Amino acid sequence: MALGATTSSFASPVAKAPLMHHVFFWLKNPSSREDFEKLIEGIKTLQKIETPQEFRIGQPAKTPKRGVIDDTYAISLFTTFSDIDGHNVYQEHPIHKKFIEGYSSLWTKVQVYDSMDI
Amino acid sequence: MALGATTSSFASPVAKAPLMHHVFFWLKNPSSREDFEKLIEGIKTLQKIETPQEFRIGQPAKTPKRGVIDDTYAISLFTTFSDIDGHNVYQEHPIHKKFIEGYSSLWTKVQVYDSMDI
Repeated sequence: MALGATTSSFASPVAKAPLMHHVFFWLKNPSSREDFEKLIEGIKTLQKIETPQEFRIGQPAKTPKRGVIDDTYAISLFTTFSDIDGHNVYQEHPIHKKFIEGYSSLWTKVQVYDSMDI
Repeated sequence: MALGATTSSFASPVAKAPLMHHVFFWLKNPSSREDFEKLIEGIKTLQKIETPQEFRIGQPAKTPKRGVIDDTYAISLFTTFSDIDGHNVYQEHPIHKKFIEGYSSLWTKVQVYDSMDI
């Protein structure tokens, strides 16, 4: 049974971090393993910032192809925060700024979805 | 400190469900509170399926506006699975098919990102 299935989504163990910040990166050179690994290295530096609760680096999963799925990105970063302030601290943190300065030349596009638990 | 910050993203407590399935819905009538609530009601029926580990219903968070953020969707659903098989069971489940049949008239667009932890 899904977590919280008998009550509500608030029963989830991650309920203390209701803000989901999901980022998708498209590489300038999607066939470059070196660039792929370099961007992951850069993303990992963001783990040093204190406010993210969850921190998950991903890549497109090999689920069956469907028209509604966008699997064209190279790397994703899923983080959660306790609140908007925690998110803002992360965005404005020197480590985050250094990450963008040092690694943004690797990507052509970034797409972000920020969702708050209902 | 972020969970797993001293080791790797695998140290996260959700590591047993490395597949993230994140769905974004755009309503046909985005100003209709009734349609918004009806779709949430429909999404909640999916909690009865056994394979999702996490199940989080969200809406656009009030993070500061940035060009990279897409906050035009109405509702999001974030679920996690132990593996691709668990995801496929969910997609093909009668409850999921009934959800699409019963509620797809409410939306104009669905966007899905499936990510596997690296």
